[in-house]
Order: sequence, then C-alpha cells, then structure tokens
Amino acid sequence: MKFAFVVKSVASVVFSRKLIYNHSCTGKAVPFLITRKFQVLSSLRSQHEAPAWGSKKHKNKQKFKIQYINIMADPKIEEILAPFRAAVKEQGDKVRQLKESGALEIDLKKAVAELKARKKILEDKELELTPVEASFDRAKMEDLLKRRFFFDQSFAIYGGITGQFDFGPMGCAMKANMLSTWRSFFILEEQMLEVDCSILTPEPVLKASGHVDRFADLMVKDDKNGECFRLDHLIKAHLEKVKSDKKSTAELKWECEDIVIKLDGMNKEEMRTILRRFEMKAPLTNNELSDPMEFNLMFSTSIGPTGLVKGFLRPETAQGIFVNFKRLLEFNQGKLPFAAAQIGNSFRNEISPRSGLIRVREFTMAEIEHFCDPSDKSHPKFDEVRHVQVLLYSACNQMDGKAAEIVTIGKAVDDRIIANETLAYFMARIQQYMVKVGVDPKKLRFRQHMNNEMAHYACDCWDAECLTSYGWVECVGCADRSAYDLSQHTKSTGVRLVAEKKLPEPKTIDVVEVVAIKGAVGKSFKKEAKEIMEALSKLEPATVVEVEESLKTNGKYVLEIGTNSYTLTPDMLEVKRYQKTTYVEEYVPNVIEPSFGIGRIMYAIFEHNFKVRSDDGQRTYFSLPPVIAPLKCSVLPLSNNADFVPYIRQLSRDLTAVDVSNRVDDSSGSIGRRYARTDEIAIPFGITIDFDSLKEPHSATLRERDSMGQVRIPLKEIAGVVRDLSYGKMTWTDVEAKYPKFEQQETKS
Amino acid sequence: MKFAFVVKSVASVVFSRKLIYNHSCTGKAVPFLITRKFQVLSSLRSQHEAPAWGSKKHKNKQKFKIQYINIMADPKIEEILAPFRAAVKEQGDKVRQLKESGALEIDLKKAVAELKARKKILEDKELELTPVEASFDRAKMEDLLKRRFFFDQSFAIYGGITGQFDFGPMGCAMKANMLSTWRSFFILEEQMLEVDCSILTPEPVLKASGHVDRFADLMVKDDKNGECFRLDHLIKAHLEKVKSDKKSTAELKWECEDIVIKLDGMNKEEMRTILRRFEMKAPLTNNELSDPMEFNLMFSTSIGPTGLVKGFLRPETAQGIFVNFKRLLEFNQGKLPFAAAQIGNSFRNEISPRSGLIRVREFTMAEIEHFCDPSDKSHPKFDEVRHVQVLLYSACNQMDGKAAEIVTIGKAVDDRIIANETLAYFMARIQQYMVKVGVDPKKLRFRQHMNNEMAHYACDCWDAECLTSYGWVECVGCADRSAYDLSQHTKSTGVRLVAEKKLPEPKTIDVVEVVAIKGAVGKSFKKEAKEIMEALSKLEPATVVEVEESLKTNGKYVLEIGTNSYTLTPDMLEVKRYQKTTYVEEYVPNVIEPSFGIGRIMYAIFEHNFKVRSDDGQRTYFSLPPVIAPLKCSVLPLSNNADFVPYIRQLSRDLTAVDVSNRVDDSSGSIGRRYARTDEIAIPFGITIDFDSLKEPHSATLRERDSMGQVRIPLKEIAGVVRDLSYGKMTWTDVEAKYPKFEQQETKS
Repeated sequence: MKFAFVVKSVASVVFSRKLIYNHSCTGKAVPFLITRKFQVLSSLRSQHEAPAWGSKKHKNKQKFKIQYINIMADPKIEEILAPFRAAVKEQGDKVRQLKESGALEIDLKKAVAELKARKKILEDKELELTPVEASFDRAKMEDLLKRRFFFDQSFAIYGGITGQFDFGPMGCAMKANMLSTWRSFFILEEQMLEVDCSILTPEPVLKASGHVDRFADLMVKDDKNGECFRLDHLIKAHLEKVKSDKKSTAELKWECEDIVIKLDGMNKEEMRTILRRFEMKAPLTNNELSDPMEFNLMFSTSIGPTGLVKGFLRPETAQGIFVNFKRLLEFNQGKLPFAAAQIGNSFRNEISPRSGLIRVREFTMAEIEHFCDPSDKSHPKFDEVRHVQVLLYSACNQMDGKAAEIVTIGKAVDDRIIANETLAYFMARIQQYMVKVGVDPKKLRFRQHMNNEMAHYACDCWDAECLTSYGWVECVGCADRSAYDLSQHTKSTGVRLVAEKKLPEPKTIDVVEVVAIKGAVGKSFKKEAKEIMEALSKLEPATVVEVEESLKTNGKYVLEIGTNSYTLTPDMLEVKRYQKTTYVEEYVPNVIEPSFGIGRIMYAIFEHNFKVRSDDGQRTYFSLPPVIAPLKCSVLPLSNNADFVPYIRQLSRDLTAVDVSNRVDDSSGSIGRRYARTDEIAIPFGITIDFDSLKEPHSATLRERDSMGQVRIPLKEIAGVVRDLSYGKMTWTDVEAKYPKFEQQETKS
Repeated sequence: MKFAFVVKSVASVVFSRKLIYNHSCTGKAVPFLITRKFQVLSSLRSQHEAPAWGSKKHKNKQKFKIQYINIMADPKIEEILAPFRAAVKEQGDKVRQLKESGALEIDLKKAVAELKARKKILEDKELELTPVEASFDRAKMEDLLKRRFFFDQSFAIYGGITGQFDFGPMGCAMKANMLSTWRSFFILEEQMLEVDCSILTPEPVLKASGHVDRFADLMVKDDKNGECFRLDHLIKAHLEKVKSDKKSTAELKWECEDIVIKLDGMNKEEMRTILRRFEMKAPLTNNELSDPMEFNLMFSTSIGPTGLVKGFLRPETAQGIFVNFKRLLEFNQGKLPFAAAQIGNSFRNEISPRSGLIRVREFTMAEIEHFCDPSDKSHPKFDEVRHVQVLLYSACNQMDGKAAEIVTIGKAVDDRIIANETLAYFMARIQQYMVKVGVDPKKLRFRQHMNNEMAHYACDCWDAECLTSYGWVECVGCADRSAYDLSQHTKSTGVRLVAEKKLPEPKTIDVVEVVAIKGAVGKSFKKEAKEIMEALSKLEPATVVEVEESLKTNGKYVLEIGTNSYTLTPDMLEVKRYQKTTYVEEYVPNVIEPSFGIGRIMYAIFEHNFKVRSDDGQRTYFSLPPVIAPLKCSVLPLSNNADFVPYIRQLSRDLTAVDVSNRVDDSSGSIGRRYARTDEIAIPFGITIDFDSLKEPHSATLRERDSMGQVRIPLKEIAGVVRDLSYGKMTWTDVEAKYPKFEQQETKS
C-alpha cells in the first residue's frame, strides 16, 4: 500500500492525507522553564491579539488563561508525568534503533504500535491533569447553539440525518465572516489564484488521486438487518463494556485496555481476530456480524442519463486545483511559485458520524496549493513571520515523550524542525488567522506527523490542532505533498503537468527518436495508424534503442498498445539521432498544502469563546471577535414608545451604510433581558435609544458585550465609532477614554 | 398532475417551478411611442446606473444602445410585425373565449399550444428584425473567456464532462464579488435571515416537494448501446434535417416547422407518435430507439454505509429553508413577515447539457423565501421603489401579441398587472441588483408566466430574462408560491409549519374531542396504545362526532392507522365538549420567492459587457463594473528597471490595505500590450510607475479601462482615489476634473 487514508479518532487527520517527512530529527530546542513559559505565552497572546475589543473583563480572561498554562507546567504535575514520558522515550528510542538496524517490517510495526499506545497514555494523563476551565459546560453550550439556531441537525422535522447540519442565521453569518476574512487574509494578501471547481467528479480523476482504491474505513454488518458499524468504534465500545463488567478478571480488563489503546494502529486482520475472539455481536439486535470489510467514504452517483459515467462527490477540493494546473500556470504567465486556493464543500460518507461539527458528511474546506520549484522552497515573505512564536509538538518530542514547545518560526526552520521556509511561513499564517477569528492561542498547537503516520511522497506535515472538550482536534493540515499529485494526473492523462525553468546555461543533449514512415504505416494499419504513430513518438530513449536493435536482429519490432500488438517492419520506421540545444528544463512542481476544515475551526471557536456571566449561571454568551461576529451591533429602543421609532430606523440605516450589520430588537422585555439576548448571539456592541436621545444634543448609549461597559456618544458619531470598533481600527479602551461613562439616563419619559 | 416541472428551451424556466397566476388581465398601460420610449429608456439607464465609472466612451456606449432600442421600435419594423401580432391576438382571444365558455380541457390545450406557437414565431421575428450589435461575436468572446480562464470545462485533461465548469481566478473573483454584492444588497439591506443548509437531501423531503415524482425530462435510449437523447432535442434535430432535405415536399417541410414550434407543449404520447411516424433512429449509430421515458433530473446517492437511505443532491436550495421554517420563525421571535435567504450549489442531471453556463449540471443559486400573511402582501418599503421603471411583458400582452412595455412598479401594482406589493418590490430590487452588477437594463425584461405555464398553487410569477445571443434567457424567477411548500411538508411530517397572529378580538370556539381512557386502552393494546392515543388526539371534529355516533349505535368504533384496525369500545373513550377562548389564530404563511441563477446572470453580464476596441479588432475586453471586476487595479512598472521595484511593492501594499484587489504585471512587453492584457481580464483601473514617479513630487499615471483616459496623480493620493472609484464613491469624470490629463512622461530614464 503506497499511502494510507486512515481516519480514526477525532484527533487524527481528516483534512490532509498522511505524509512522510524525511528530514532528520534535529530539533534542538529545550523545554522552557515555567517562568519562561509564562512570559512567552503572554507575549504570544499580545502578538496575535486581533485588534483588542475588550477591556477590563478581557484582561481578566487573559489572566485566567495564563494561570491555566502556569498550572500545566506545574512541577508537581511534571513529577507525575515523568514516568509516562520516560516510557514513551524508551519506546521511541527502540523504534529508532530498529530502523537504524534495518529490522523486519513486522517488528518495526509492532514497536510503532506500542509507541503510539504509550503516547496516547501520556496524552490522556496530561489532559487529565490539566485543570478544566471551571466555566465550561458542553451541554450548556450546545443548548445555546441550538436554541439560538447557530446550527442544528439537518431535516430534523423528517427525523434528521446524522452528520449533516444546517447553519442558521447566526452560524451562517459567522461562517461567511470567517470565509471572507480567510479570503482577504490569504487570497488577497498573498495574491493567490482562487478557483471554484466542480463538486461532481468523474471516477478516473479520483482513481488517479488514490481515493477510489484507498479512501476507506473498516466496517462490519449485522448479518440479519444489514445495519453497519464502524469496526474500531464497535470494538472499543464492546471492550469498554467488558472492562466495566464486575465479573471480568483484572487480567482481562488490562488486556481490553491494551487493545483499545492499540486499536488505531491495527489492520483488518488484527481487528477481525479481536472481533471473533471476543465473540462480538451487533449491539441491540445481538445478531451475528459479518467479517470486516472496507467501505469507501466517497458518495457515488451517475453523471448523465445513461448510468454509465460513474462519479463521486469530491472528498476534498484539492483535486480541482491539480487538474487545472496547466491553465493556472498559463494564467500566471508560466511563472512559479504561485498559490491557488479554493473554498468549497466536500463530502465524506462517514460510517457513523458523531461529535457534532467535528465529524460530518458534508463540510466546507478552504484549501491552498502552493506550487514551487522542489529545489527552492524558500519564501520571499519569510522574514515577516520569522519572529512568530508557535507551540510545536515535533515528531522528535513525540518520540521522546517530551511536551510541545514554544519556538519561533525562524528558529524552527534554522534548527530543521520544520522542513522548509514555505511550510513554516504558512504555519505562521495559519496561526495568525486562527487567532484573528477567535481561536485561543493557548489551545492551539502544531503537531508534526510521525514517520509511521505518513506515506512515501512528502517531506513534512504538521496539523494545527485545537484543544476542545473532545481532546486535541485537527483543524488545519499543512503538508508538503512533494510532486505526488501532479505526477499521478500526468501518468493518468498523458498531459504533462510540469513547469519550465531557465537553465543557468544552455545545454546540448543527444536526442534519439523513432519516426514512423507515414505512408507505410498508414497502408498496413489503416485506422490504427494514428494511434501507432502517437505511441512511437512517446517512446523513451532506452526503448528507441531497443526498437533499433530488434529491427536489426529480428527484422521486426512488436509494439504493444494496451492489449493490442502491432508488428512493425524496418520499412515503416526510421531511427533518428541528433543534437538539440535547450535553454530551459522541465520539472514537476512540488506542492505545499494548507487545508482548513472550516466547521472544525468554527467548533473550536465556539468552545473557546463560550462564557457564563459570573453573577448569573443562566446568562451564557459567546465572546466572538467582532470580525467574525454574525452581527456587529444591536439597536434597542428603551421601550416601545413611538418617539423612538424614527431614531431607531435612522440609526439602523446609518449603520448599514457604513457596512455594519445590525439588528433592531424592539420586542418587549427589559433592556437588560434584551442585552442578554443579543449577548447570546454574540453581538459585540449595542446601542440604546432612550429619552435623553430625543433631546439636543442627541446621544445614545453604546455597550460592549464582554466588559458590559457603557459610554454615552453623540448620535452623529456613533455609526462611525461602531464601524471602527468592528473593523479593528479602534479598541473599546480608546472609546472609554474618549467618551463619558454612562451611568443612567436623566430624562425618564 | 398537480404541477409540472417543464424544462425545455433555453429561454424557459429553470430556477422556479411553474406557477399559476389568478389575477385578471387588467393591464391598462398602452405601448409607448418611439420618442417616449427613447426618453424613458435613457431615464431608465440613469436611474439604475451603478455609480458611473466611465466617461466619454461610456456615453458613446449609451448612445449606441439608445439607437438600438430606437430601431427596435421603428415603424417599418412594426409594420412587418403587425400581422404576426394580429395572429397572436386572434389566438389569444380564442383561448380566452374557450376558457370563459368552459370548453373541454383537450380543446383548450390545443388552442394554448397554437397560441404558444404563434408567440414563438412573433418573438423569433422580433429578434430577427432587431439589428444585432455589430461588435458582438460569440466565438471571439468565448475565446477570451477560455484563454484568460474566466471559466472552462471541468476535468478537461480527463476528456471533460459536459455541463460542468470550473471558474478560474477571474471568473471566481467575479462570482465572489457578485455574491458579496448580493449579500449586501439583499441580506444586509433587508435584514434577511441567511441560512446554509445541507446539499445531500433524504428522499422523503423531495418526495414531499414533488421533485421525486415530477422533476423529469423525456428521453429515449439507443436500443443497442444505451446512449440517451433528450427527446425534444432529438425530434427537433431530426425535423430540421428533413426540412433542409431537397427531396422533402413543401408540405412536409411546413409540417416539420409546425411540429418544431409546437414541441414545447407536447406530452409524452404526442412526442412518441412523432418519433415513430418519422421513424427516427439514433444519430450516428442509426440503431432503433426506445419508447420515450421520464428521466428524473436529480442525482441520487446513498447516505450512510447501509445503502438503504436514499438521498439526492438538492435540485434547488429552497427546500432547506422550508424545512427550517419553525426554527427561523422562532429566531424571528414568532413575527411575520420575514425573509430567509440562501446562497449555495444545486444540481440537475441534465440529459444533454449545452449552451455553456446556461444549462449546466452543477450551479450556484441565491434564493430568497419571503414569508408573509396571505391576507397582507403589502411591503413596508414599497414607496422606495414605486417610481422604478421596469420592462414588463405581461401575460395579457403575450396573449394580445403586444410588445413588452415600460411601466413603473407603482403603476403595475395599481393596475393589478403585478399581483401584490411584495412581489413587485422584489422585482424592482432584482432589476436594481442586475443593473448594478452589469446587466444592460435595455436587455432585461420581466416576463409573466401565462396561465398554461403554471401550476395550481401560486398567484403570480415573473421571470427576469436577459437578452443574449441565445435569445431571452431566464436568469431570475420571482414567484408567489402561496402556501404550497409549507403545507406539503406539514402533510408529510405532521409538524405544523404555521404562524400565529393576534385576533382583532378574542374568539370563543366550541371544542369537541375524544379522549382515550389510558388504563383501558393500555390494557387492551399494550405497545400500540401510545400510537392509538396519538391518533385519537388528532381527529378532526367531524370525525369525533362519527366516533360518538358509532359508539352509541354499534357499541364500538374501528380506528384505522395505516393498514391496522383497532376496535375501540365505549369503556375506552370519553367524548368531551367545552368552549375555549382563543386570542390568536394560526395560519400557513405564503411564500414569495425570488430565485437567482448566478451562472446565467454571469453569462448575460459577459455578453452585455464584451467589447472590441474600435481601432483594433483583436483587442477585446470586458467593461465590467468595478463592483464585480475580478481585480480593481493593475500596477505596472514602465519597464523592468530595478528602481521601480520598491514603488511597485509599496503601491500594491497600499492598495491591499484599502481593500483594493490588485495585480502587479511586471512581465516584459510594452506598456500598451500590458494594458491590453489587463483590459482582457476586465481590470478597470491601471497605475503606471514611470521615471517621473521617481522624482519629487512622486506621482503616477492612472488609466481607466473603458475610456482609456489617463491622468497624473500624486502617489500619496492614488490608493484612496482608486478605492473611491472602485466602490462608487467617485466617478472617472470627477477624477478627470480634479487631476491633470496625462500626455507623456518627461523623464526618459
């Protein structure tokens, strides 16, 4: 198997394929001391902070987070973790040693499985010891998301379909804002070539990419009713049950735990053995289960009416870019490097989707394919990100049982932890984007793929992972895919997906080719002559020599095209030799691919920004940054007094005119209750028109969601102030400094 | 058949379903005189003009267009058209008369088919007599679209798939700009609730909407190789061949023409008869053809691994909104009217897609569903559009053989040409949007559906059609769908998709209901008791009386649920009668649906903005309005002199900072050649850095694409000027007035 599409636990790769890195583990960075970590993390925060929109409350939040990290690196905790770290390192060293000694494939595989198992135990222990943020309550957050229709299950009135979600007005606006921010941040800023390609993809394209043959999960079927179960989920659930059974022996329990831990690395046969050994049956029905079978995760359909053209819904957007490579290169006037990007939906027919937005059947991706010369992966803007600090969990550290470390992007490249500048540049940009749209930088890390997770064709791969209540979740993959995809499509189509570069000096090469003598070939082969001549023109130099030899020795050459053979005689062919001077050389560009799972990032943002008011456990809200907040401003009349109406209308119009999305809430309910309602849908700013507003000089109250601070601003200035706040040109602190604090209105009616 | 999904010619409906209007034909507007038309059209233009970006050249264009319309209403042409108009009117009157006299369905249908045939002849004649814009050359335009990769066939390196297109960087950016303009114009401006729903749709949803049973085209199959042909296309092609055959008699030729004209209105049996009578065979193979069969246009797939859950790719985005109606109503705090909107891809498995972007298998739609009280279809912002002039081709005018007429929206509603204010409001807004993004207002009309084109459930439907080289193409449908969809989903799910309104005064009603006595029912029916009680609670009052009667007379009542019968006895049931006071009343909201086909609008924009320089037939370009231009500004160094580099970089950065998308073209080639290249990709503004730019005070040349005018602007001001031009805050005329005209640079190196 050349490469594996393994999609197992929530925290494993979904958006990128598994890749192999081939740089040596030379990471030299040492773990930070506690105090050092403390400082670095606060600088990390300020460095990435999207234009600050909060003030007092916001600072509190920051303090809280720093504290959280501080505990993370607590010496007492490190003491508990020490033996787990040592166990990983021991096994990591063993794996290294086996590799060096050229051990048997099977022994190496076993050792790697054990390494993964130990890593998993260490990671679980780390998370277990991490104090959870006291305020986070997933059920409460999900209730809010559902109740205010950020998103919810699709077709619920028809019973719903698992793994499919509809975004309501707030979720949809937030997603649109995330995408438009992504577009400015990457496409405009980096002058990428954006494309919008078809979702329905004919089979040969996905055959070439490897998806038809290998994009599969293992499942088993209920022998009687045909219900399907994802095999790893089924085994895990069964063994958990055995473990919790009082009648099970300690030994059996230990064995179950061991299997669960190693499950991720098991193949079909190993899983089948376990399935049978434990005599597992279908849950609920208790029917017999089929043997494990591979289930391709792509949705298939027929294109056109004949039913003969098989197609799939694309499982990733990337292939659309690869098949358009020639057009894009031409659009870019033949120059490399350049990046193409695509935002769009992809589809995966998960066997048993779960974990809300994290594992779904239909999802929005944003992918970048940066094409470059394999011999030059430097990046012209690298210096702009050299200083950016990232939390790296390198393959070396994973094998050594060490924690993730904070390193600057520049140092990571210098120390060869990250394979090249371009990959590192994108990692920095990914982090900047994630923080801008609301991901908590202290819950964001880059985890490098380890040797054993990857396929043969790439040289480095990092996943941007977010810490959520489901554990570390991969949200963005950033991989160096080398020349794999372009080569595959070239192989399948015969269309050379290559670029040219000027040679430092012209090169003279010897050419040998076999030319068909048209008349003779045409006469002998009629209709097939064209195909034969084409095949001849494509022969490699070595084969041409063979042809020449064969014509001389045997008086003929048998050409094979597909299943047909054609006997060619000396009168039909001429072998030509000559010299040619070339000024350019062709090469297959390499591809560096940052691939964003928008739904997953969105979910992480929800978790990282879900808040409960300290004085009232029922008042929950999302502290989304204004840039992605679904609406920027609410407009509230103090009461339903008719005098407020023209002011409210004008204000809403003024805000719309300066591109501030807004929502009037003139429903009944106290102003406090309405604030709570707008907080729930994450509106960062709220304007209240009260009786003082009716008097000259007209003014209104502006309130900030997170701090709940209020100031009084002249009506004429207010739309501009909210625009500046919404687009990061002004902070709430600036506003508080400039305008008087609002205490209470003077006029009562 | 309750309603028909008929998708036939290019100009017929694709985005909306066919609807019935039930208002009377009372249009009173009379055709304008030539001079009147002339004036009205120029006022129409200025009224809708997106903030003017052109100047001299633009005025020329305008003059040209006015001239074009002027010819359209030429009395000589009208003289030629008169008999055709009379023929339509004669038949229209006949149809009216048949309807009034309650004629047989079959006679009415025949008369309508004849009416459509005559209408088609009239329309063809009108188009034939319309002088084509001399400069338009579709092949040339398509060459440019392909060469600069606005869009092109998908998967071309794999041989391509018909009806699928990939948008390249320029097409994609233009599309993104169209959609973001749409979002501000409709969603933000009208505070609509945007949603983003699943594409994969389970079968029951589309069964309820009618798509599973009726969303089909007729096709025939080659008996031997299985190749499929769309039946109407096949017949038409065959008859055209017969017509052009010299051996055919005049009578036969006339008959062929007659059939082709009537084809649109024929049913399966009529088409079968023609197929057999002319002994049609499969093109190319000459094999026998199957009988006509219905081919459902939806792509089907299985959701989940069992293969048992059938799903389709949605054929429209609307259903996603309908199934979320309850959540949306709740989000809107129970208030009506409100509008929901969705932008997304839909899929139709066309039998034989053609006409480029106009008939495709995968396309982006933008749909609005405005929910309102059926008894109140007024619109609060109607006065803002009352004065807007639209070109209306009413059903009455179509039946009378009259031309389309220019009417104000206000008058159209007053005269009951358009059924209600909300529908009319959206038509005005549709026109404003179309013109803003570059549709030529003089090639835009609203055509009303005629009685015979529509289904039973709606009261009015208008298509916004654009005139292209393919004829009039429907780009936006605007329909009053009444309560159809919500009722259908209520029927299928049992979930009441209704709204409530306060009654003017409380109402006391008599309630009669049958209540199950839990113990008794439970004892007798065990597991089924719950279902029985639920069924009883849902009985209509009339049925409750029947139950009561039956219990009295027969001592039992037989309840049927599905195929099961349950015999209930008096000890199990109690009939209750009481009075209830209600303050609200429930109703099923009506839906008004503007539905935009983004790809078709885009195609119309390309045709309407394709230009050839008068001095050079090879220099083609698109005069796209800046708001949708893929890139707003090019940045060109005069030569590859290294001194220009820092200026170019800084300028590009300055432009990006003020949200002006830009592209540096520092390739070799004269400045004129590079201008031509940026014109081709529709960049409206270009900045050139030359040797004068290097001197204090630094300045650069700014060029406008359409007029090719050039001015000299200080470098510091230039980014701001381009931003103001790009976002319509300044016109090119303003710029020419403010800055000196550029003649030639002073410094040469």
